[in-house]
Amino acid sequence: MTEIDTQPPPKADSAAAALVQDAPAQDAPAQDTPGPGANPVLVEAIRGAMVESRFRGAFAVVGLEGRVVASAGDIERPVYARSAIKPLQAIPLVESGAAEAFGLGDAEIALACASHRGEPRHVAVATAWLGRIGCSVADLECGAQLPANPAALAELLGAREAAHAAHNNCSGKHSGFLTLARHLGLPTQGYIRYEHGVQQRVLGTLEIMTGLDLGAAPRGVDGCGIPVIAVPLGNLALAMARFADPADQPEPRQAACARIRAAMTAEPFMISGTGRFCTRVISETGGRALIKAGAEGVYCGALTGEGLGIALKIDDGAGRAAEVAMAGLLARFGLLDAGHELCKPQLRNRAGTVVGELRLPADGPV
Amino acid sequence: MTEIDTQPPPKADSAAAALVQDAPAQDAPAQDTPGPGANPVLVEAIRGAMVESRFRGAFAVVGLEGRVVASAGDIERPVYARSAIKPLQAIPLVESGAAEAFGLGDAEIALACASHRGEPRHVAVATAWLGRIGCSVADLECGAQLPANPAALAELLGAREAAHAAHNNCSGKHSGFLTLARHLGLPTQGYIRYEHGVQQRVLGTLEIMTGLDLGAAPRGVDGCGIPVIAVPLGNLALAMARFADPADQPEPRQAACARIRAAMTAEPFMISGTGRFCTRVISETGGRALIKAGAEGVYCGALTGEGLGIALKIDDGAGRAAEVAMAGLLARFGLLDAGHELCKPQLRNRAGTVVGELRLPADGPV
Repeated sequence: MTEIDTQPPPKADSAAAALVQDAPAQDAPAQDTPGPGANPVLVEAIRGAMVESRFRGAFAVVGLEGRVVASAGDIERPVYARSAIKPLQAIPLVESGAAEAFGLGDAEIALACASHRGEPRHVAVATAWLGRIGCSVADLECGAQLPANPAALAELLGAREAAHAAHNNCSGKHSGFLTLARHLGLPTQGYIRYEHGVQQRVLGTLEIMTGLDLGAAPRGVDGCGIPVIAVPLGNLALAMARFADPADQPEPRQAACARIRAAMTAEPFMISGTGRFCTRVISETGGRALIKAGAEGVYCGALTGEGLGIALKIDDGAGRAAEVAMAGLLARFGLLDAGHELCKPQLRNRAGTVVGELRLPADGPV
Repeated sequence: MTEIDTQPPPKADSAAAALVQDAPAQDAPAQDTPGPGANPVLVEAIRGAMVESRFRGAFAVVGLEGRVVASAGDIERPVYARSAIKPLQAIPLVESGAAEAFGLGDAEIALACASHRGEPRHVAVATAWLGRIGCSVADLECGAQLPANPAALAELLGAREAAHAAHNNCSGKHSGFLTLARHLGLPTQGYIRYEHGVQQRVLGTLEIMTGLDLGAAPRGVDGCGIPVIAVPLGNLALAMARFADPADQPEPRQAACARIRAAMTAEPFMISGTGRFCTRVISETGGRALIKAGAEGVYCGALTGEGLGIALKIDDGAGRAAEVAMAGLLARFGLLDAGHELCKPQLRNRAGTVVGELRLPADGPV
């Protein structure tokens, strides 16, 4: 499965081996995922005088050499990282030379790592980019999606226009895949299929970064049509540590990671958009925390100054809780002030009154 | 606090006493809610070859006399029922004579029990109703909300119009409160405040139906501005059993419950709207299952043929999981076929491909 990839086989990866040393389940069939043991409550929602909802989950903060710096819950349980690993999925785009060959700048490379909300600049950059590689919105296989940004939505519907695939939050990632297909001389049609060379190249990169042979890992199809591959949370964090500091990777990958980190830092708006968590954190930390959300309550992050990777998942998939858990971890590692509003976001009702908040439990593990 | 209400005091309620007999915490300060003990996994989300997300929660199915017919998890933990008790909150509107005095029909009474999605008929019924009591949209204190129904949203934004308070999913409940205020000769302004006579009347009704003195219960403010009062899940189920069969209630309440049940059965569209879970279940069961969703993963239901009440909450507040748990309970009690699509809804990606499903775990308690 890694035939296209020229990297060494991942099984012997010592950092990953150290990380999973207590995980005999690695030899069991991958579909035998651990049972629903109760992870700890990471975040709670307060309304008035009471906790209204509770969010369980797990997190891992891992150093380059596979050392688990902090964790809670079952970090060996495989999770689908969803969009939280878009920065890793963008590595082949840069590493292959495709980005340079087509003259991609910070905006395009950041957009390849993005889950945007369909604001005009996101759509414009994607559309122009597609033109530059001889493709169009019709070549995107991610499906149409209405913009999640309220102003963009009102503008689109106000003009009585339909959403198209460039509005899809993943349109940058897909433009990156099309660019890679063009560069490798592969057919563009079907680029989202597991067997396509683009997806195999992405999978090979993910194997090296996580230190796992993922050929037999449980998999499925993402909201935008590409494969999702189950990876234990701890290994996702290791991959993000390597993205932060790829010193143990061969040089083409080191340069590719540095290029992607620089693009995300230079263009935080492209990663998510106006007022959004990822965009705010990357911007406010000056790129010291390169974080990315994924559907179903996943967050990944690279602490570039510390060489640490973070991965977390809220069991039930609540993104609102994943943000608060990530903010708490960033505060713990000095990237955000503990009193930052992102650590304790207020809940308002429709009339604008503050009625509660999301917060870390006083005795919680974050 | 129940001065307006002429019902007997609730503390001596034998059905509720039987229900909570194992609950010494009732004597402790109400704010000392039980800790975050792990409720069982009620629902899971599958994507491809793996469970992607897990939803813990609790449910209670209770008979008129307080007998717990089925349950899982901590049913003594207080929860905010949110919109799931709108049928109970509508009781004073009917019982007081206000509904009859202002000539409300099935559509209006059902709308008082609704969390609608801003479709044209919902907005039109609310607006005309407000006119009939000498009020207007400006008297609603629930705040404006964009329609959640996609077609209604596209139509509103396509006309470049702003949402107003009649689009708010709670506009029917609030119109009912205004109607009650008019009928009782109370000021309409401030009708959402805890101290207002309308809310005190609603609270008194909730006390009788749940069998609890709620004067010291934890409380907060709902998304639409009215008070939310914490009630143990088991007592919510008892209240719904009494709504299904109010044989132990004084006659004005028996008639009011029957009137509301008839309105919900006759106008299921008003309860939620096109293609929505509540509307479908009420319609497909011919009113044998009168169910109502609440925010933060709550569902309440009255099985009118069986005289049973159901209450459930997903710990983390996920409505998608609450629906599947409710569908499973309805199947268990013969109200839905176990193979009904609502019991195992498919997950599709943006291109329309089936990528997974929500389901009850094989060994789960539902």
